[in-house]
Amino acid sequence: MDTMQGMPKTYRVRTELEAILERLEEGDAVPSERELAARFEVARETVRQALRELLVQGRIRRQGRGTVVSRPKMVQPLSLRSYTEGAISLGRKPGRILIGWDDVEADADTAATLGVSVGAVIMHLERVLLADGEKVGLESTFMTLERFGPLRSHYDPTTSLYAAMRASGVVFGSATERIETVLASPREAALLECTTTLPMILLHRRTIDAAGDPIERVRSLYRGDRMAFETHLRE
Amino acid sequence: MDTMQGMPKTYRVRTELEAILERLEEGDAVPSERELAARFEVARETVRQALRELLVQGRIRRQGRGTVVSRPKMVQPLSLRSYTEGAISLGRKPGRILIGWDDVEADADTAATLGVSVGAVIMHLERVLLADGEKVGLESTFMTLERFGPLRSHYDPTTSLYAAMRASGVVFGSATERIETVLASPREAALLECTTTLPMILLHRRTIDAAGDPIERVRSLYRGDRMAFETHLRE
Repeated sequence: MDTMQGMPKTYRVRTELEAILERLEEGDAVPSERELAARFEVARETVRQALRELLVQGRIRRQGRGTVVSRPKMVQPLSLRSYTEGAISLGRKPGRILIGWDDVEADADTAATLGVSVGAVIMHLERVLLADGEKVGLESTFMTLERFGPLRSHYDPTTSLYAAMRASGVVFGSATERIETVLASPREAALLECTTTLPMILLHRRTIDAAGDPIERVRSLYRGDRMAFETHLRE
Repeated sequence: MDTMQGMPKTYRVRTELEAILERLEEGDAVPSERELAARFEVARETVRQALRELLVQGRIRRQGRGTVVSRPKMVQPLSLRSYTEGAISLGRKPGRILIGWDDVEADADTAATLGVSVGAVIMHLERVLLADGEKVGLESTFMTLERFGPLRSHYDPTTSLYAAMRASGVVFGSATERIETVLASPREAALLECTTTLPMILLHRRTIDAAGDPIERVRSLYRGDRMAFETHLRE
């Protein structure tokens, strides 16, 4: 029996390619399409498809005229911890770039989440998330002025928001998180320095404190080639 | 202050468009680009971008020469329940199309998950997942012959696999699930009747029973315009 008999050819080629990548270091050149096609005894189009999949998955990246091995994706646990804590626990240096911290009027959805009336003035904090200096996500946080307006006097938005909230006495309770996939808009792609054809992970979070009062509504967009999430499920 | 002042224009247009869609029924025609651009007093390109985003999100779909309102995405809780139970709880009729149920040799990753040696013969069950007859996902399950070979004599693969496993005495324990986003390969896109430019949600699951013994390794690919997932996070 052939290895992986009955599996689509691309899947077999991708699996074997992954085994080759395992033995290479970050930044090493990936063998050429021609060489791989000869080695696996398949058509170049089959190799090209497998390489395309590995590219979207962030396992390899283009560099100049060639293709090199990338760093593995960051796999964050789905949790109530902040991005900062998550990145640190994975051995990455977290960072943020402030895009804007503005007053906006609440739309229906945000108003319902934050417990204010539609059109009420709330805060919108928008930041690019960094891991070891690399732009991996774009985060929009909506909060009420009433509860979090005072942060404006002392909070540095390039640091952890959750840490600042906790320091101001907030006790986190729970959150619901919806996970979707989308393409980046041109503006989002520009902020994250990626293309609009790269699939992104979109998380919508609604967080309440231990007393059940609303803390925030968050929309986080992560580069699909740089981030993945993991969770543990129990019966 | 203008509504949503400080927000990117596309975001405002999308929010207002969503409000319009809320008032329409599934299958209703979406107003034309020209009409929307006039109503919102923005460039047609801004409307086009917002419509493109709603299309990828599955909120609208092309029909003939026009665009109509789609059914909302199916939002499944991330849980150890089967696809069948999840779909039923959302009021959708689950179904499956068998693509293949073959013997394959285990690659390194699958072998480690299932506790067999690399190259050992295992079963690969591949099915398209349906919701009300619509193709929403493609699921690959890997199981050992030793434990689940007997299913071949009586299990109908167009029904719930978890129900059959439970009936044969399996007690589910827990699973780790990794969530990623990818583009569909040409084969996957053909099986799901979508394009290779549509972002997909990819779930990798490793399930063990109550005694800690491996049950399965699963790779599930869901259409990003038809499915989303939700989870509840606690401090």
